[in-house]
This record gives sequence, C-alpha cells and structure tokens, in this order.
Amino acid sequence: MPHWTALVAEKKQRQLESIPQEWIVTPPPDSTLDVTEFPETCGLLNAREIEITNTSVQVLLEKLARAEWTAVDVTTAFSKRAIIAHQLVHCLTEIFVDRALARAAELDDHLKKTGKVVGPLHGLPISLKDQLCIKGLETTIGYASLIGQYADKNAVLVDVLIECGAVPFVRTNVPQTLAWPESFNYVFGRTTNPYNRSLTSGGSSGGEGALIALKGSPLGVGSDLGGSIRIPSAFCGLYGLKPSYGRVPYSGTRGTLEGQDSLVPVLGPMTNSVVGVKAFMKAVVNAKPWLKDPLVVRKKWDEDEYNLADHGFGKDLCFAIMWDNGVVVPHPPIRRALEITKAALQKAGHKVVDWKPIKHRELGDITASNIFYTMQRGIMNAASAEEFMITTSVTGEPLITTMELDDADTAVATFRPQNDGLTVYQLWQVQKLRQNIRMEYLDHWEATVSETGTGRPVDAIICPAAPFVATPHGKNRSVYVDYTIVWNALDYPAAVFPVTTVDSTLDGKAPPHGFYDDFDKDIYEMYDPEKFKNAPVCLQLVGRTLEEEAVIRMTEIVDAAVAAAK
Amino acid sequence: MPHWTALVAEKKQRQLESIPQEWIVTPPPDSTLDVTEFPETCGLLNAREIEITNTSVQVLLEKLARAEWTAVDVTTAFSKRAIIAHQLVHCLTEIFVDRALARAAELDDHLKKTGKVVGPLHGLPISLKDQLCIKGLETTIGYASLIGQYADKNAVLVDVLIECGAVPFVRTNVPQTLAWPESFNYVFGRTTNPYNRSLTSGGSSGGEGALIALKGSPLGVGSDLGGSIRIPSAFCGLYGLKPSYGRVPYSGTRGTLEGQDSLVPVLGPMTNSVVGVKAFMKAVVNAKPWLKDPLVVRKKWDEDEYNLADHGFGKDLCFAIMWDNGVVVPHPPIRRALEITKAALQKAGHKVVDWKPIKHRELGDITASNIFYTMQRGIMNAASAEEFMITTSVTGEPLITTMELDDADTAVATFRPQNDGLTVYQLWQVQKLRQNIRMEYLDHWEATVSETGTGRPVDAIICPAAPFVATPHGKNRSVYVDYTIVWNALDYPAAVFPVTTVDSTLDGKAPPHGFYDDFDKDIYEMYDPEKFKNAPVCLQLVGRTLEEEAVIRMTEIVDAAVAAAK
Repeated sequence: MPHWTALVAEKKQRQLESIPQEWIVTPPPDSTLDVTEFPETCGLLNAREIEITNTSVQVLLEKLARAEWTAVDVTTAFSKRAIIAHQLVHCLTEIFVDRALARAAELDDHLKKTGKVVGPLHGLPISLKDQLCIKGLETTIGYASLIGQYADKNAVLVDVLIECGAVPFVRTNVPQTLAWPESFNYVFGRTTNPYNRSLTSGGSSGGEGALIALKGSPLGVGSDLGGSIRIPSAFCGLYGLKPSYGRVPYSGTRGTLEGQDSLVPVLGPMTNSVVGVKAFMKAVVNAKPWLKDPLVVRKKWDEDEYNLADHGFGKDLCFAIMWDNGVVVPHPPIRRALEITKAALQKAGHKVVDWKPIKHRELGDITASNIFYTMQRGIMNAASAEEFMITTSVTGEPLITTMELDDADTAVATFRPQNDGLTVYQLWQVQKLRQNIRMEYLDHWEATVSETGTGRPVDAIICPAAPFVATPHGKNRSVYVDYTIVWNALDYPAAVFPVTTVDSTLDGKAPPHGFYDDFDKDIYEMYDPEKFKNAPVCLQLVGRTLEEEAVIRMTEIVDAAVAAAK
Repeated sequence: MPHWTALVAEKKQRQLESIPQEWIVTPPPDSTLDVTEFPETCGLLNAREIEITNTSVQVLLEKLARAEWTAVDVTTAFSKRAIIAHQLVHCLTEIFVDRALARAAELDDHLKKTGKVVGPLHGLPISLKDQLCIKGLETTIGYASLIGQYADKNAVLVDVLIECGAVPFVRTNVPQTLAWPESFNYVFGRTTNPYNRSLTSGGSSGGEGALIALKGSPLGVGSDLGGSIRIPSAFCGLYGLKPSYGRVPYSGTRGTLEGQDSLVPVLGPMTNSVVGVKAFMKAVVNAKPWLKDPLVVRKKWDEDEYNLADHGFGKDLCFAIMWDNGVVVPHPPIRRALEITKAALQKAGHKVVDWKPIKHRELGDITASNIFYTMQRGIMNAASAEEFMITTSVTGEPLITTMELDDADTAVATFRPQNDGLTVYQLWQVQKLRQNIRMEYLDHWEATVSETGTGRPVDAIICPAAPFVATPHGKNRSVYVDYTIVWNALDYPAAVFPVTTVDSTLDGKAPPHGFYDDFDKDIYEMYDPEKFKNAPVCLQLVGRTLEEEAVIRMTEIVDAAVAAAK
C-alpha cells in the first residue's frame, strides 16, 4: 500500500478536477463567519437557479412532475449551489455532476415520452453522506486508508432512491471513523457551519448539514448511530429524522463497527422542511425495501398512523418536555427554545407536561459513544480500538485524536485507542442491561397515562438535540452526545426541527446552577452568547418505536404551532 | 449455596407433591414403546374429559365462549391428562393446577356475569416451556443451580396470554442450558417420545412436544433459537410455528446466552392443528404486545397478508421443495413425506419447483449451534462456555455432555466446554458475514421469479425440519440442527406440519448415496426403519421475514392438500 499522505494528495487532486472550473468562485475571507447569503450574491446563480434552490421539496416535486421545471434544470441549479457551498464550508467529498445530469436527462425524456413520472421523487437531486456506496465511486468514510476502493454496487437505499426518480449528485463529508459529532478528516478536511464558520456543522453527517443549510441540496441522506443525523441537523437549522431500526434500508453502505448488530446505525433524511422528511420516508417505505434489504421491517407506510389514529387523531395531544436529562443542563438558547415551543403548543390547544428522564446516564455508558477518551466499557467501544487499528495500519494513517482547530489540521498523531474493549461475555452482559432498561423505559412511558388527562400516555417527548447549539470546532466531543444517543439505545424515532437562532440579548449567560458533576460544569462554562452568535437552535421530537408516521405528523403540528406563535 | 444434588433432591420431592395424588396411575412398563393410547384407556379420564381433550383449539374456544363447556371443566380435563402424560414421558416441570383452576373459575364467573369472554383465548389451558417466568414460581431452564430462584413477575407473554383469557396450568421440560435438541436435565430427568419411548421427543421444547402429542395440553408455548420449537413439533407430529424476530413478546423469559442479541430466540405456538397456530398468533399480535415489550415489532395482524394479498390471493401458488440442504441427505421417511406433499400440491393445482439451497453449511457454522463438540467459532459459542461455567459453578453442578441413555442419566461429568470463544472483534466479523449471507439469500429468493411462472418469486419453501424423524436418545446432537437453524439465521418464519408416520415397508433403507462427508455418512448409517418405528414424519414450510400471516395461510393450504390427497 502507498503511504496515506500519498493517497491523500492524489485524492485531493482528483476531487479538485471533479469540480466544473466555470463554477469556481472567490469565497469571502475566513473572517467572514456567516456565509449564508453568499450563494445568492456571488453572481454564479441566475435568478431562476436561485428560485429553484430556494424551493421546498414538496413544491419542487410538484413542478418537476408537471414538467414546469426539468430535472436537468433543477439538478444543474443545485449542483452549482452545492459547488459554491463547498468552496465556503468544505462540505463535499465525491462530486459526480455529469453522472447526475445524464440521469436527469433520462428522467426528462421519460416524462416527455410517457407523461408519467418515474416515481414519487422524480427529478429530485439528493445528496448522500459519504457512506452510501455508489457503483464505481470510492467510499472512504473519512479514512485515507480506504482511498482507491471502488464500490461494485450501489447501497440498497441508493437503488431505491434511483427507482423513485431521485438524482444523486454529490456525496458529503464526515469525520474519520464516522465516530465523532464533528466532521474533519485527512482526506477532505474540515466542514464548517455556514451560519458561523468558527463553529462546527456537527457530525458525523456534518457535510450534509452544511450543504443543505446553504441550499446546495434540497434533501440529503445521513446516518445516525448516536446522533449523527440529528446533531448536524440541529447545528445547521434543519429538519432531520432518525428512524427506528429497519425502516430505511441500510445494507450496502460502508460503515464503522460493521457486524456490531446490537446498537445499529440507521439512515434518514435531512432537509429544509418537515414535508420533505415525509416525502422521503413515504417514498422509501412504499418501495417495499424489505424485498431488497433483509434487515428492513415489512411494514407499509401507514396513513392511519400518520393521521394519528393511535393519538386521538391529533385533537388534544399531550407533549412532555424534557428540560434537562439529569446529566448536563442545556445552555440558555436551548432552554429558550423549549419555552417557546411549550408556549406555542399550549396556545394551539395542546397539553404540555414535564418528562422525567430515567437512566439516561446509564444508557450513555452502555452505548459508550465515547470511544476515545475514557475507559467506558460499553457496546460501541467493545472492539472499536481493534477495528480502527486494523483499518488504518495498512497505510500508516494516524487516528485523529482531537477536532480542535490548531492541533487537528496538522496533526500526525501517534495516538492509538487505549481501551481494552470487552470480552464477548462482558459485552452480552452490557447488552442485557440495555434490554432491561429498554423494558423499564417502555413501562415508564406507558405509566404516563396517569398524568396526561387524555386517556393515553404522553404522545411525544420534546427535548434538546444537544445541551448546546453548534460549538466551536473541537468542542463537540463524542462524550457530549447523551441527548441523542439515548434514543438510539431505546430505538425511538426522533425528528429535529428548528425553533429560533441564538440572540445575545435573550440568551445571556445564566447564573451557575447546582452542577451534576465537573462535566456539567465544563459545559456550563463553555457558554458565551458571542461565541455562538447566529447559530440555529433546534429541538428533538421523540416518539415510540416504529412510529415514524406519527412522529412526522406530530413534528408538522409542533412546527406549525411554533410558526403560528411567532 | 447448597450442593446441586441436595437442591435436586428437594426439588424433585416438591414436584412430586405438586401432583394431585388421586391422579397417580400405573404406567405401562418401559418396554411398551407407544403410549399414545394409554391416557384414554387408563381409566382416569371420563368420557367427557376424553371428548374435551380430543377437541381442537378452534372448537374448544367456540364451546368455551358459548359456555357449553366451562373453563373449570376444560382445565380439569387437560390437567388430568397432562398428569397422566407426565407419568408416561416425564414432560412436566412446574405443576400449578390449583392456581389454574382458580383462574378458570374467575373466567367462568366473568362470562356468567357479563355474557362476554375475557379475550380471544377465553378458558383455553396453555402449557408453557420451562422458560416463561410466572410470578412466584421457579424457572430453572434445566439447571439444578437455578432451583430456588422465584420470579417476581410474569414474562410479558404470560401476561398477554392471561389478558387474552388463557389459563396457564403446567410448565414443561427442557435440556440443561436449553442448548440441546433433546430434553434431559438433572432436575426433571428425560422426556421421551410418546409414539416410541425409545426415541427422543426432541428439544429444547421437548416437554411441550411430548405433552401435546398425548393431548395433555391443547396448545403450548415453546422457544426457538435453532429449531427448539420445530424439532420437537416435528418429532412429536405437531404443528408449530417459529415466528420472525419481534412478532411474539420474549421479554421477561429466562433464557440462555442472554444479552446475545444478534441471533435471538423467539417464542411460538405448538399445537395439534394449524388453526390453533392461527388463533394463538392472532390473539397475541392483536394484543399490541409492543406496548409491553420494547423488542416487539409494531405490526398489527394483517388480514390482507393472511389472505395472501402478496401471493396472488393463493390462487396459483408456487412452492419450492428443498430435497436436501447440501450438508446431510434426509432419511427415507422424510424423502417420502416430501414426495407426498409435492404430489398433493400438484393435485390441488399448485406449482412445485425445486429449491436450491445456498450457503447452508456456512450459516450453520456462523450460528455455531454446536456449542460442545467442536471448535466452531460462531455466534452462539462466542461466550457460551463462560456463561455455562458461571451458571453451574455456584453449586458444583456438572455440565451434561451427552444425552445418551446409558451415560447421561447417571453421569456426574467433570466436563467443561473446551472452546475459547471469540473476541468481540471476531464476533463482529462473523455477524457481518451473516448479514452478507442474509442479503445474498434475499436476492436468491427474489431471483426465483424467473422460474415460477406466476410473476412472483417462490411463495414458500417446503423442506425437512431435520434430516430424520425422532432419533433414539442421545443421537440428535446439536450439530444436526442445520435444517432448522438456517431459518433462524435468516430470520424467516417457519411452520412445522405433520405428513405421515414411519412405515417400514415404504421406508426401507436406501442404498448409499455419494456422501457429502463423514458426517452425512454417519447420519445415513443411523437409519433403520425398525429403530424409528411409528415416529411421526413432519415437514417445514418457510416464508419471508415478518410474513407470519401468509405462512399460516399457506400451511393451511398445504395441510388441506395433503389431507385431500390421502
């Protein structure tokens, strides 16, 4: 094998060559933190391209189906804007605009000849996290060591999306190993947050987050094992859904910790509207993905469940707000978003109670997202060190040990993960503990029937997606993902939705509270309204296992209530 | 802890005391092999009790719902017959007739007062494998070491069944560790086959198999991790269903290899008719068990799927017969049952093609059911040795190393499992390989669309449940479960149904075939029609993941075709 630095140099050159030269722009200096206006002001996009890229998924699909806009026009517009975005925030990995335009032309041709769309996502450009294999392309998942390995077939979801008429056109950045909630690696560099480039866009689907926030893609696919869809969605002001296990086909992707089939990753949509989330999920589920992926649950899209048949048809919902998880107290902007949402829901006639979290700290320990920093003896780190070593040792690639700006970009660390992992027997005991807590949590949720007054248990939980908004680079360490990973551990579907942005007047530093521990204190001390300037503030809505339809509908209801209350 | 022998002596005494003394009979001598006639001729059951215990589940439920028979009468009749059965074949573990009769009386009272049944299984006595915890009772799963551990709550399925109106009344025998396809342990001894007591009733749900074959229970619950419902069903001439993962609630049971959540056990029904299987599954699924067990799939009973909406509404089905699995060639009676079934289906107007098995040997190796005999490095034995040691060492209980008659009954072995298990990283690689084969098998099944002529892939596979009928004791070693465990590895639902019984005229020894290996040769050499005299011959019908409704309907169709062709 060549040395990893040689692989990276060659790959970077190829990436550069995959960018159409006429779409090169002069980005603002690094000192310009908010770059969200740049795509529309830089002069590369014409008025129609700006209009197209500002259009919601639902309207795009309607216009495409009526041939009001061609798939080629829409794909071109988003491709241009994606390339602009990339020059601002380094969000792309594989760029295959030619391939996408060829597919778009086929779709236009089909519609012209038959008068019919190919499928429910006809002509919609879709970006994909650098994990969804596409025949003939590399999938490095942030490892220099995987450069040069070309997929011989598509991931199942890629096939399903293409059958639905979608047009994959770019893939997006991730951290090395996929196991960080930020997005930096030696191959493609660091993705930054378009609202404030001194902040991270999150991870591991951080390229998607940044790209979609800049409207360089109408909808992207991320993956989520501990928050990797929800954290970048929340940090970039998007809507995102982490479905339950087995609802969206995952097979055929390139992942981390493959074969670890206890706490498994799921794929899901990230987009600018909740109707986009619905369009994606309905299309994918109705394509009968269980005939292509053995791990997909045979469960059709259920319109009754979408209409909240199990939730009194949505007439008097009862939401439970989790103000903090008993591990870390959220920063002021998050608290304010929860208050805004509570007031909006009450104004809309819904009931709101408090959610009492149980065993969130234990769930965090069991999952052991914190694969680098501690001796946590949980599922994910049971053999992560061994896998990372095996993957990187072939090229001498160092494992990235920090995402801090000063250190990481130039680091050629000699770090190797220190934890010894677990024996299989120990792993089984941890997994058994998790099963017991899942049982306990289910009983806990069912027992809320006594406090709702609706005759039903709480319909959904509303909670932070993280204790903070997008952090400065290097500060969103894996150890901080407890607000998301508990719902993976419990296998509850969870949607992220935007509420507001950081406002230094409204979001002043709070006086110190009684800290849970030093870690909680560290998080408290990190806050400074100026540092987090302009960052989007999002929340999570959490439902019951395999209740994606109801979670989407309830997110629509909350979203409309928040909008109406503004 | 007391020594295991002291625990066993005390427990045996308590079991004896739990048997109503007036129900003690004088069983025939051990030389009487076929004891199926004994319950009705021994004089303990009156004519009405014989009528009740010979009635199918469907008719029982109808008569109970109309109060034509009381729950007390029905429970009494089955309890008596169960106690008779136990004296013939040692099938019971916990006997709690008083508790059952008290519940039956409540049900009768409820029906009398309200005119309504408590649920869809109102008044139906149900036997349970010695794994389904019941509050206040011990659950030893065949370990002397677990004597004296009383459950503080019911397994979820027990609660669901009680809510449905069922009456649990006995629990049934299993092998020590649950990991053998026969049923012998130091606490409750050896369960034998009612059709020929020199043969095993199978395992690990072997107590259920023997009990139901003697009509000591109308319906029982077994569990299946590698064939433990299907092997005893097949060996005892019953109908049994191994559902897909997550269709029937498993939480709250006492299991083996707990926390191993890759290849997981499932609970399912064993009974005398396929309508009994349907009644059980429909009742359980419609009870919304996902609100009680976090691992249950949120999927209602689907009447469309039962009506074969995805299979052309059952008009021209195409079945595929797997004559052998490429590992072991089945014995002559099994071959004849396949031929009978093929002819019957063709006569009924269905199409029959051959099933080409792929990678069955690999799937057997991956699952590693063979936890004692080899160095197989698969999922189940990744840490089984450690678990077995930890469980038994507290009382000095030896691990049973053979189920042979002469050795095992008196053995106080010093054996300890020899295999070293796997590291977590190695386990993940094995699990990844399994995922890949699941994908390959799905594609393989989908590709059969080209040979069926129905426009659909093969609707169901029909295959042996084992390469032989019930074997002499000690001969059905774990290593022989490849015909069942592949469907666990693939998570395909599979139903067992009876076809015929061994007939020495029709089932003479076949000439030697080209053996796959020494193991195949061993199995060939084991066959002798006299040895397997009178044994039931059953087959398996295998469907697609989470397609229980369709598997039940297709089993009804095959069953009717076989009956019509007789």
